Amino acid sequence: MSNVYGTLFKISTFGESHGPAIGVVIDGCPAGLTVDESFIQLELDRRKPGQSKITTQRKEDDTFKILSGMFEGKTTGTPIALVIENQDQRSKDYSHIAEAFRPSHADYTYEAKYGNRDYRGGGRSSARETAARVAAGAIAKLLLKKHNIEINAFVSQVGEIVAPHYTTLDLSKTEDNIVRCPDAATAQTMIDFIDQVRLDRDTVGGVVTCVIKNTPVGLGEPVFDKLHAELGKAMLGINAVKGFEYGSGFEGVRLRGSQHNDEFYNDGTRIRTKTNFSGGIQGGISNGEDIYFNVAFKPVATIMQDQPSVDKHGNETTVSGKGRHDPCVVPRAVPIVEAMAALVLADFLMRDKAGKL
Amino acid sequence: MSNVYGTLFKISTFGESHGPAIGVVIDGCPAGLTVDESFIQLELDRRKPGQSKITTQRKEDDTFKILSGMFEGKTTGTPIALVIENQDQRSKDYSHIAEAFRPSHADYTYEAKYGNRDYRGGGRSSARETAARVAAGAIAKLLLKKHNIEINAFVSQVGEIVAPHYTTLDLSKTEDNIVRCPDAATAQTMIDFIDQVRLDRDTVGGVVTCVIKNTPVGLGEPVFDKLHAELGKAMLGINAVKGFEYGSGFEGVRLRGSQHNDEFYNDGTRIRTKTNFSGGIQGGISNGEDIYFNVAFKPVATIMQDQPSVDKHGNETTVSGKGRHDPCVVPRAVPIVEAMAALVLADFLMRDKAGKL
Amino acid sequence: MSNVYGTLFKISTFGESHGPAIGVVIDGCPAGLTVDESFIQLELDRRKPGQSKITTQRKEDDTFKILSGMFEGKTTGTPIALVIENQDQRSKDYSHIAEAFRPSHADYTYEAKYGNRDYRGGGRSSARETAARVAAGAIAKLLLKKHNIEINAFVSQVGEIVAPHYTTLDLSKTEDNIVRCPDAATAQTMIDFIDQVRLDRDTVGGVVTCVIKNTPVGLGEPVFDKLHAELGKAMLGINAVKGFEYGSGFEGVRLRGSQHNDEFYNDGTRIRTKTNFSGGIQGGISNGEDIYFNVAFKPVATIMQDQPSVDKHGNETTVSGKGRHDPCVVPRAVPIVEAMAALVLADFLMRDKAGKL
Amino acid sequence: MSNVYGTLFKISTFGESHGPAIGVVIDGCPAGLTVDESFIQLELDRRKPGQSKITTQRKEDDTFKILSGMFEGKTTGTPIALVIENQDQRSKDYSHIAEAFRPSHADYTYEAKYGNRDYRGGGRSSARETAARVAAGAIAKLLLKKHNIEINAFVSQVGEIVAPHYTTLDLSKTEDNIVRCPDAATAQTMIDFIDQVRLDRDTVGGVVTCVIKNTPVGLGEPVFDKLHAELGKAMLGINAVKGFEYGSGFEGVRLRGSQHNDEFYNDGTRIRTKTNFSGGIQGGISNGEDIYFNVAFKPVATIMQDQPSVDKHGNETTVSGKGRHDPCVVPRAVPIVEAMAALVLADFLMRDKAGKL
Repeated sequence: MSNVYGTLFKISTFGESHGPAIGVVIDGCPAGLTVDESFIQLELDRRKPGQSKITTQRKEDDTFKILSGMFEGKTTGTPIALVIENQDQRSKDYSHIAEAFRPSHADYTYEAKYGNRDYRGGGRSSARETAARVAAGAIAKLLLKKHNIEINAFVSQVGEIVAPHYTTLDLSKTEDNIVRCPDAATAQTMIDFIDQVRLDRDTVGGVVTCVIKNTPVGLGEPVFDKLHAELGKAMLGINAVKGFEYGSGFEGVRLRGSQHNDEFYNDGTRIRTKTNFSGGIQGGISNGEDIYFNVAFKPVATIMQDQPSVDKHGNETTVSGKGRHDPCVVPRAVPIVEAMAALVLADFLMRDKAGKL
Repeated sequence: MSNVYGTLFKISTFGESHGPAIGVVIDGCPAGLTVDESFIQLELDRRKPGQSKITTQRKEDDTFKILSGMFEGKTTGTPIALVIENQDQRSKDYSHIAEAFRPSHADYTYEAKYGNRDYRGGGRSSARETAARVAAGAIAKLLLKKHNIEINAFVSQVGEIVAPHYTTLDLSKTEDNIVRCPDAATAQTMIDFIDQVRLDRDTVGGVVTCVIKNTPVGLGEPVFDKLHAELGKAMLGINAVKGFEYGSGFEGVRLRGSQHNDEFYNDGTRIRTKTNFSGGIQGGISNGEDIYFNVAFKPVATIMQDQPSVDKHGNETTVSGKGRHDPCVVPRAVPIVEAMAALVLADFLMRDKAGKL
Repeated sequence: MSNVYGTLFKISTFGESHGPAIGVVIDGCPAGLTVDESFIQLELDRRKPGQSKITTQRKEDDTFKILSGMFEGKTTGTPIALVIENQDQRSKDYSHIAEAFRPSHADYTYEAKYGNRDYRGGGRSSARETAARVAAGAIAKLLLKKHNIEINAFVSQVGEIVAPHYTTLDLSKTEDNIVRCPDAATAQTMIDFIDQVRLDRDTVGGVVTCVIKNTPVGLGEPVFDKLHAELGKAMLGINAVKGFEYGSGFEGVRLRGSQHNDEFYNDGTRIRTKTNFSGGIQGGISNGEDIYFNVAFKPVATIMQDQPSVDKHGNETTVSGKGRHDPCVVPRAVPIVEAMAALVLADFLMRDKAGKL
Repeated sequence: MSNVYGTLFKISTFGESHGPAIGVVIDGCPAGLTVDESFIQLELDRRKPGQSKITTQRKEDDTFKILSGMFEGKTTGTPIALVIENQDQRSKDYSHIAEAFRPSHADYTYEAKYGNRDYRGGGRSSARETAARVAAGAIAKLLLKKHNIEINAFVSQVGEIVAPHYTTLDLSKTEDNIVRCPDAATAQTMIDFIDQVRLDRDTVGGVVTCVIKNTPVGLGEPVFDKLHAELGKAMLGINAVKGFEYGSGFEGVRLRGSQHNDEFYNDGTRIRTKTNFSGGIQGGISNGEDIYFNVAFKPVATIMQDQPSVDKHGNETTVSGKGRHDPCVVPRAVPIVEAMAALVLADFLMRDKAGKL
C-alpha cells in the first residue's frame, strides 16, 4: 500500500480513526520557512467535525503536536512529523460493522484485499485521515504564500443547487457562512436543503470549486505529470470524490474550437489570455491565468436508515445507520481540497526550481 | 521534466513530432509474456492519422521496431524499447509558429518554462507522443488478457450528441464505424456532425467512455493511489482532456445517499452489488463490478481559421490555420484511453501481487 | 531532503535527538503479519546506549509506541507508525556546539546546506535516528522469517584486531559478549582494547560483517538496483560508515579469474557453487549461497579532548569533548546493519513477487 | 526489474548485447544546455573495446544517434533518447552458453529469476549496457562543467600493483597511457602485468579511484541518500564491482578519532579542513574538499580456459573460454566510474536547488 504523496514536497500519512493517533510526516519542505502553528490549527478547525448544525455532531478537538523538523519557529529541512491523537478510542460497540459490509463504503474491498482490517469507525478508510492532509497542506500553503500564490475553494453545488460562476463571486466571503458558499443567497438555500436532508435521515452530494490565483507561468510538467493531471489525482484521492474537471471541463465538450480557444494578448506587462477556458493551464503547464477546477463529491454513504447487505461470510444481513454523520460532506471538504491543491503546487514549485539550468 | 509513468510497470516515453523518432521504454514488464507484434500494430493503426474522412488526412505509417527486451517472441523481464520513426521530417515552413503562439496550444507555456523549444509541429507537446503510449499499452493489454481483464473504450459524446448508457450497448461493435460509437444510429449522427464541423473549418469536443470488465477484487490502493485517482491522472495526462469522472460522476452529486448506495448481495458465487454507482471501485479498490469512467476532450485547438495572437516578443500577430488536422479528436482517442487504462491496471496488478504476505 | 527508504517496503524516518520524539512510518508492509512487539524491543535494546562498559554510559530507555497499522496483533497493510519519545530533552547547555563546528561531524555541512539547524546533540544527524531504523528493521525481519531468511551481523574488526573468517565461526554466539564478536578470544582482545581507547579519551574504528542465510535464488535486480548495490547504499547510509564490500571484496582485486570464479555443481537438490567469492550474488541477483559483506566504520568523531576548530562566523575556536560517548561504535552498530539488510531484503522479496507473470 | 537511475536527472537504459541496439533515455536534464556531440563520442571511445592491446580485441564502433530532446544544439528539457546500434548481431554459435551456466557470470541467476533470457553474449547482463551509461554521463558532465565541477578517475591498482596516493599524482596524465594510471612507472608495470595475464589466458582485478574537485558545499542528503551512499550504489551497480570506500575507507578503521578527525580552519575565503579523511563528505553532505573514493573490480569472469560447470537441466558440463575478452576490466572502467559519478552529482545538484526556499 502506498500512503506517500508528492515527489519533492512529499507527505506520508498514517493512522486509523480509532487507533491511538493519526498523523503525517512531511519530507522535503525547504529549511527556513517560518511556521505559524496557529495557522495549522485554523485549517484543522475548518475541517473538524461538530463545527455547525449541518455537519456531524461528533466532537473532536483536532489538536496536533509537531514532533520534529522545526527549530526556533522555522523549518530545518528535516522531516516534519505531526501527530493528532484520537481522543475517542473507547471500546464502543462496533459489532454491527465488524462483520457486515456497509453499502458503498470501503469495508468489503479492504476486507477482500487485506484480510485483517480495523473496522472501528472505518479505520484507515475513514475521512479522519484527511486531517493529516489538511495539516500538511497548511504548511504547503505557508510555502506558497512566500510566492504570493493564493488558493480558495468553496462550495459551488449541493444537490441541484448551483452557485454562480466563481468570476462573479467575492471569494473572501466563503467563511461567512457554514456551508462555505460565498454567495449568501445560494448559501442559505444550500443550508436549508442540507438541514432537510438531515431530517430525512439521508445525505446528498455536492461540488467544491477551487480557484488558484497568482501561479507563476511554468508550473507543471508536460506529459504524464501535467499540472491538471496531478491536481486531478490529488482530488480524486479525497474520500467520496467521483469527478474532476478544470477550465471548461465537461461543458467544454459542447463547444467548437473557434469558441473555446483562448486568444492571447499583451496587457502591457505580460502575455495573457482574453478568455480562460484553459483554466490557467496549457499543455499541462500554468500560463499565469487563474487555475480553477471542480471536484464532485457523492452523497455520504452512511445514512440513518436500515439497509440490506451481506456479511463477511456472504450471508444476508441488515446494516443500521448509527452514530452521527455528515448529511453532506462538501462544507468540510473545502479545506481538504485546498490542502491537496497546496501540496500539488508546492511540489511543482520545487520541481520547477530544480529544472532550471 | 518527468516523462515516466507507473510504479512497477513503468514507461518512459520520448520524442518530438518532427525529430528523428518517438518511442517508449517499458521497464518492469514481467518475463515470459508472449508478445504478438501484430497486435501492437493493430492498436497503433487505431490511433494513426489518416484512417478515415473524419480524422486528419495526414498520412503516417506508424510502424515500430522493438530494440530490446524480447527473446524468441517472449519478454525477458528486461526493458522493452520500442521506436517509431518519424517519416515526415522534411524542412517544411514552420516560420508561422516558430515565433507566434497558437491559441490554446502549449506553445507559450513551453516557451516560458523551457526557453528552447522544438516548435515544429508541436514538438514534444504534439499528440504524436501518444503513439508511444498506445504501443506500451498494447503490451499491458496482453498482460491483462492473461488475467481475463478486458478494456473497451468508445465515443459516447460528440458536441451535443450523446450515446445511450454503456450498459445498453454492445461494445463489440465499437470498431464497426469510423467514429467508434457502438450505437449505429448515434454513430451516424456523430459522423455527419463532425463532417459538417470540418467543412466549417472548425473543431468540436467529445467524451470517451471506458469500461473495464473482469477486474479482480482488490486492485488499487486506499489513500492517495486510489484506483480511480490513478486512472484519473492517466486520463488527464492525455492531450486535450479537460475532465474525468467515474461511476455516477458529476451526476451523482444530485442524488441522495439512499438512492446512490450500492446494495450488496451474494449471487451464489461471490459478493456483488445490485447497482453500480460506485463504478466498480469502493474506497479506491476494485470490487469486481464493471469499472467505467468518462473522459472529456476539448475541441481541437488547431482550427482552419485566422486567429489573433501574440508572438514571443509580445507583439500582436495573426496565426493562420494550416495543414491537415482532426476536426474532432475522440475517434482516435479511444485507443489512447484504453492504453492508459491498461497501463494503470497492469501496474496495480503487480503492486497487489507484491503486497501479499 | 529525502528521508524515505525503499521501493515497496518503504520507511520514512523522522526526529531529532533532542526534539520530542523520533520515529518511523513503514508504508508497504503486507497485511496479516503477526508482530511480536517484544521482538522489536529486543532489537532496540541491542542498539541502545548504556548497555555495557564499552558503550556510552548515557541511559536511554528506547521504549516505543505503535500508533497505527496493527489490529489484533497483526499488520493491516496500512502504514505502521512507531514513535520513540526522547526522554532527555532538558535544556542543557549546548552553547559549545551551537556556534562551533565539531571536527568530522555534520555540523558544518548541515549549517551550510540548511541554515536553520537543531544543533542540540547533533539533531537530525545524531545516530539516535538509527533507533527508528532498527524498529522498522525488526518488522522486516519478522517478514523475512516467514521465508526462513536469517540475518546475522557481528563485529569482525576493531582497530587492528581482526576476527577469523565467518565460515569458521558459530554466529549464534554473537550476543555472548558485549563487543558482539562470536569468537570469544578475539572478543576479549577487542573489549580490552576498546576499554584502553576509552581511558585514552579517544575512539577507534571497526568493521561489522553481515551474513544472510537462506535467501531464495532470484532477489535483486540486474542493472542499477543490484542486490549488493542496494545493500551498499543501505549500509553507507548508516552514520560513520566509510566502506562496503561483499564477497571477495577489495581482496578479490588481487586474484586471477581462474582463482576467483565460483564453480557450479549440482548438490542433488539444487545448483550450488563450490566456492563463494561471489558472496551469494551474481549479476546483482542472489544465487542461494550465503550473502556476506563487510561494513567499515570510522572512529567516532566525538573524542574527550580539546580540538581546534572554526565557528559559524569563521572565527577560530576550540571544541571540547563533553558528555558520554561511545569509544567504538561497532558493537551497537551490529543491530543497525542487520536492520538495514532486513529492509533491503524485504523490499526485494516484494519486488520479486510483483515481477512474476 | 528496474533499469531507471536517478531522482531528478533520471536515466533509463535498455538493450541487450546482441539485440538490435542499446540506448538510454535521459529524463530531467534542464533545458538550454549546449551539448557537444563530439564530447559524447570521446567518452564512448574511452570505454569501447579494441582500443589497446590490453583490452578485448573485439571491434565495435560505438556510434550513437540522438533521437529526441535536442533542438538547435541545445537541450529542450524533454527526454533525450540516445541509441547505439549493435553492429555485430550475426547469428554466431552461442550454443555453448545457451544451455550452460558460465561460472561467476549472471547466467544462472537470470535464468532462475526470469526464465526467458537472451543468452547471446550475456544479453542484458553484458557490460555493453554500460555504454549507455557513459553516453548519459557525458551529458551530466556537461551540466557539471557549468558549475566548474571536475571528475577524474584513474586506475590505482591492478592485482598487487598499487599506484601512489592521488594527492601526489597529476591527474591530467591519466589518458597518457593505455592502462589509465597517471603515474607513468606504475602504469608500465601494470601494462606488462596485464599482458602477461592475458598470455596466461587468465584475468585479474583492479581498483579505480575517482576524484571530484570543486563540488559546492551542500550536495547530498543527510539520512538515506547521503552523497557517498548514492555514489556507493552507483558504483556497486557497475558490472564486476565488489567494493566501495570513500575518504579513509577501510583503512580508516585502524585509526583513532584523534588521528582521523579533520580539523577545520578558515583559509581566508572559506572554511576548509586541514586533512581530508572525510573524503569531502561530512554527514552525507559535501564540504567543498576533494571527494575521492575507490571502486574494487573483480577479475573478469570469462577466462580462456575450460571450466567445469552445470547446465540448465542441472547436468555437469564444461564451459570453454571463447571469443575475445578483457584480461582486466579497469582501464575501460575508468569512464564508466566517471559517468556514474557525474549522474549522481547532477542529480544532487538539482535536488539541492529544489530544496532552497
